[in-house]
Amino acid sequence: METFNILVTGGSGFIGTNLVNTLRNRGHTVIAADIQNTDRTDYVRTDVRNYRQLERTIESDKYDYVYHLAAEYGRWNGEAYYENLWQTNVIGTKHMIRLQEKYDFNMIFFSSAEVYGDYNGIMKEEVMEKNPIVDTYQMNDYAISKWAGELMCMNSAKMHDTKTVRVRPVNCYGPEEHYTPYRGFIPKFIYHALHSMPYTLYKGHKRIIDYVEDTVNTFANIVNNFKPGEAYNVGGVQDWEMEIKEYSDIILNTVGCDDSIVTYKESEPFTTKIKTIDFSKAIKDLKHDPKIKPEEGIKRTVDWMKWYYRLE
Amino acid sequence: METFNILVTGGSGFIGTNLVNTLRNRGHTVIAADIQNTDRTDYVRTDVRNYRQLERTIESDKYDYVYHLAAEYGRWNGEAYYENLWQTNVIGTKHMIRLQEKYDFNMIFFSSAEVYGDYNGIMKEEVMEKNPIVDTYQMNDYAISKWAGELMCMNSAKMHDTKTVRVRPVNCYGPEEHYTPYRGFIPKFIYHALHSMPYTLYKGHKRIIDYVEDTVNTFANIVNNFKPGEAYNVGGVQDWEMEIKEYSDIILNTVGCDDSIVTYKESEPFTTKIKTIDFSKAIKDLKHDPKIKPEEGIKRTVDWMKWYYRLE
Repeated sequence: METFNILVTGGSGFIGTNLVNTLRNRGHTVIAADIQNTDRTDYVRTDVRNYRQLERTIESDKYDYVYHLAAEYGRWNGEAYYENLWQTNVIGTKHMIRLQEKYDFNMIFFSSAEVYGDYNGIMKEEVMEKNPIVDTYQMNDYAISKWAGELMCMNSAKMHDTKTVRVRPVNCYGPEEHYTPYRGFIPKFIYHALHSMPYTLYKGHKRIIDYVEDTVNTFANIVNNFKPGEAYNVGGVQDWEMEIKEYSDIILNTVGCDDSIVTYKESEPFTTKIKTIDFSKAIKDLKHDPKIKPEEGIKRTVDWMKWYYRLE
Repeated sequence: METFNILVTGGSGFIGTNLVNTLRNRGHTVIAADIQNTDRTDYVRTDVRNYRQLERTIESDKYDYVYHLAAEYGRWNGEAYYENLWQTNVIGTKHMIRLQEKYDFNMIFFSSAEVYGDYNGIMKEEVMEKNPIVDTYQMNDYAISKWAGELMCMNSAKMHDTKTVRVRPVNCYGPEEHYTPYRGFIPKFIYHALHSMPYTLYKGHKRIIDYVEDTVNTFANIVNNFKPGEAYNVGGVQDWEMEIKEYSDIILNTVGCDDSIVTYKESEPFTTKIKTIDFSKAIKDLKHDPKIKPEEGIKRTVDWMKWYYRLE
């Protein structure tokens, strides 16, 4: 299999860390970039909000592919830290696009299934072209910023012939996702359960989750079948869909505690109850093939969190 | 007629200056805010990118209405200065929305007809709800940032019950529009003609222009029939639609020079040929009623530019 020179921005984040490891295991030469100094090797501190830092990193080698993951993540994080969100997710992405026009690398831009907004049909990639605008009004800055990033990539492709694939991960979870209050429900429930901290659970919401090892395998496959201009949903298996309460039950059972820490509430306002997402395009083009079922993935994530937070 | 306490951000810009004058002539108490120190009265320097400066301005009085015009303007300006664009148009607008949630004023948010992207049908306001997304893909950061601002206003209305009217001006021109290379075709052609500087004209593009006195009369009417949640196109009269070459001819004729400074080219890439815009909603709700025809408006604008640039 052909190997490449690859840069991964956001390379010490949750998905980035896993992706860097997978790409290296496949023989690619990978440099990671992220906002802080770290103890990692083949790593260069780069705040994508600053063009100079980003250019210095890009021009240090001839990269075939850049996985651009550096971003402020999550809806409530984006509302609380919107200055950082827009500077990183949009200005940072524009810097990257300008450098792409100058240095001619292929890009994989990390968007989010949040771009579909509150859409209550089946989320196929083409929904973002064919459907009425109001179907997918993005209801928070995080979602708006990700769609803005996608539009920028598309515009640059038209005007400057840059080559970019956009990906929309869906509820990816697993090891290396450090807990913060702005993380998704899986790491939040696990962390809280491990620390006997209370959490609130909204009933009636269904979700599909995808174990990060599976997700990043698919992302890593992109360089072997790179189709510029395409966008892909990447997430779990439809049959795995469960109510958020069921995930909570699995987590409590795995951690070994009862649900006395859980406050059950009716459905969360301003949040889609059911997201049904079509992954057939990634299955076809990117050999997307999730193998780790939620029970197993949650067990591994609980084990990792116990290890990471020294709870054993 | 009821009078109000009003703040106008971007109050020393082109539309802002005209709007402030019109509102004051109607008896409103108006404070202008803009990015630089000026010699204006009832004015406070405020860079909307900085929350602290904006809050200090907002809390200095109890405002009934804020006209939020402060923005980086124009497609090519936005591509050249995208950092400023996103910080001002989006982060600045988010600051404003947060202050609106806190201080409870009504807002008039200045968007742009650029949000319709390359749409080639009749641009009615509802196009931004009902039409397929791809119809209105925004083709530049300026347009994307304005639509992001509109979405932010809508989201805040849903979640925090803030009250905002969005307006989409179309090719407004007239006195107080200082020339820069990033301005629209009317001030550009006039300035170039007055200075015998060459300009390029793309044929086959039709536009409707609106004299700023007419435009700001309509904007000033908003406080007398404020309908939160509405969006309005505001521009000239459909019968006034002309090819850009016809405008150029009027300008050359008014200035008194021939077209030897003009280079004629075929249609501009990545730019809509004909924009047909429906103004019936503003006519109905806001008594929108443009009176100054292009020939007269251009004459006045030429006179103003001659005076302003001391060319007489």
